[in-house]
Amino acid sequence: MTAAQYIGNKSFELVNGTSISPGANEVRLDVGFVGICGTDMHIYRGAMDQRVCPPRVIGHEMSGIVAEIGSQVQSLKIGDHVVVRPLDHCGDCPACNAGHSHICHNLKFMGIDTPGALQQSWTVKAHTVHKLPDNVSMKQGALIEPLAVACHDVARARLTAGEKAVVLGGGPIGQLIAQVGKCTGADILISEVSDVRRKFAEDNGILTTNPLAEDIESKIHAWTGGKGADVVFEVTGVAGAVESMTKIAATRGRICVVAIHPSDCPVNLFDFFWKELEMLGARVYQASDFEQAIDMVANGVIDLKPFITSVSSLSNVDQAFASMDGNPAGMKAIIQCQS
Amino acid sequence: MTAAQYIGNKSFELVNGTSISPGANEVRLDVGFVGICGTDMHIYRGAMDQRVCPPRVIGHEMSGIVAEIGSQVQSLKIGDHVVVRPLDHCGDCPACNAGHSHICHNLKFMGIDTPGALQQSWTVKAHTVHKLPDNVSMKQGALIEPLAVACHDVARARLTAGEKAVVLGGGPIGQLIAQVGKCTGADILISEVSDVRRKFAEDNGILTTNPLAEDIESKIHAWTGGKGADVVFEVTGVAGAVESMTKIAATRGRICVVAIHPSDCPVNLFDFFWKELEMLGARVYQASDFEQAIDMVANGVIDLKPFITSVSSLSNVDQAFASMDGNPAGMKAIIQCQS
Repeated sequence: MTAAQYIGNKSFELVNGTSISPGANEVRLDVGFVGICGTDMHIYRGAMDQRVCPPRVIGHEMSGIVAEIGSQVQSLKIGDHVVVRPLDHCGDCPACNAGHSHICHNLKFMGIDTPGALQQSWTVKAHTVHKLPDNVSMKQGALIEPLAVACHDVARARLTAGEKAVVLGGGPIGQLIAQVGKCTGADILISEVSDVRRKFAEDNGILTTNPLAEDIESKIHAWTGGKGADVVFEVTGVAGAVESMTKIAATRGRICVVAIHPSDCPVNLFDFFWKELEMLGARVYQASDFEQAIDMVANGVIDLKPFITSVSSLSNVDQAFASMDGNPAGMKAIIQCQS
Repeated sequence: MTAAQYIGNKSFELVNGTSISPGANEVRLDVGFVGICGTDMHIYRGAMDQRVCPPRVIGHEMSGIVAEIGSQVQSLKIGDHVVVRPLDHCGDCPACNAGHSHICHNLKFMGIDTPGALQQSWTVKAHTVHKLPDNVSMKQGALIEPLAVACHDVARARLTAGEKAVVLGGGPIGQLIAQVGKCTGADILISEVSDVRRKFAEDNGILTTNPLAEDIESKIHAWTGGKGADVVFEVTGVAGAVESMTKIAATRGRICVVAIHPSDCPVNLFDFFWKELEMLGARVYQASDFEQAIDMVANGVIDLKPFITSVSSLSNVDQAFASMDGNPAGMKAIIQCQS
């Protein structure tokens, strides 16, 4: 079977890998489609080589079909359409013991810390697998993982119907947060500098503002009748948004930090005190977020098709990554792993 | 009656004021004791002149006796021992409408924005008044307000029995938070650079560390068996503590920002993401915090006597403030307003 190994310096190598027979509690999957996410792009650009240790098969947003099952696996059968929740926790650290295994102290992220999905055959622990209903396509299945991220973020922020939320940053995760928030019954506004990303949001029913063209504080003040946003999602990773987030939040507003900020960032702690703001970090997802994401697609509540920018074959993995590099129009490139 | 007016530049002036007859929903109090708090010290040093507009009678931590009641006041009678929750809200802003009148958009803080308690007679709205039981002395009554701050902070942080909390900063509020936390059944450790404040904490049954002498991250790692602190209270207002707070917090730990940070401060947002931390701003108190504070003193759960550093007469108000200026040994100076 063919596997695409990231070998450093924006390059992949196609190798002839060996399918791994599943252990007792594992399953072997024929990989259907694999999505490329922001973290994959960071890896592609070499920013995570120390953690990834190339050569490494990366990829963690995927759909597949169960091809082989281990002797102890009861919940799955050959032919099931599935997605993988790519988190391998230790089961015995303070986070796991407190029920937060998704942020386990010793978490291995499959496709980053261990081999990932950009190959034709992937063997994984059965407990990481979620079944897809018949009416969720394999292509949309590859986007369940980022949708589960959005579900987790909205849940962390405790966003409820009737509230007003601002999403700072209209990349794929920001757009998915907006869609999940809208389905929750909240009013959503995305702040995004890219014209093409604002158009994507508007085409999918989300209000937008361009913070370079409009004063965001005045905009949100007017939009909320002077109250401020009940919830702010920080999905940009840039200092300007962090400066805005405390200004546009309502008294007792919640700020959900989704973006990765590699260095310390100035935060207005006076606003936290004065308005009794709340800030919640959000990372990956829990099993319930995957179930919610699958249900939302199966029930037709969310349509992931507009998010699929391109479909490439595994042999064109280099071009697929290159097409997303610095391309704000790219939402989600997916790779078809079977020929 | 005598009133002490702050006139700017670390100075007070004793003036002969006129007692104000209460309106229909007001009461006039004979002021017993008034405590000096950190905000009063800021005012004293001239840092808040623009807001305070001297000359101004300041003071907002107080006890008193009802001397006169307005025609519509049912809940109080002449002779009642009382304390005042010094918050005058507008009743018609988004915060008030959401039930958060203590952080009203148009809040007037009595003793800062309007005349305060450093006078022999103070006329206030009846809804700001809480009755003191017979077994709470007038002197301890003057410390109910800062104790209510601590109750509010502990409630905001959702600190529960069996949890471990670190209080960064061992000033009066940090020490009171530690006491309230201890009564809640949590294990508390105060991080404080001042020897005399660490001794005060230890004399009152609280563990301490000196962050200049010990590495606080290693210390808390060892103290919590590698888990990190369930709750961190930031009560210093200094950047070093903000740098520590995300390091010492457990996965999903809560950080309660109590201190006032006048300028933006670098915060490790990566830690917020990675450990799914939560940060909660906490400001003043709600009526329930005052009731809890009064109950804790009345039931003997908390002893406020060790917190009373000195008792001065109103005519010595200048010396009382001077004695607290830059004095880490000073916890609470109180002023006796009746002669």
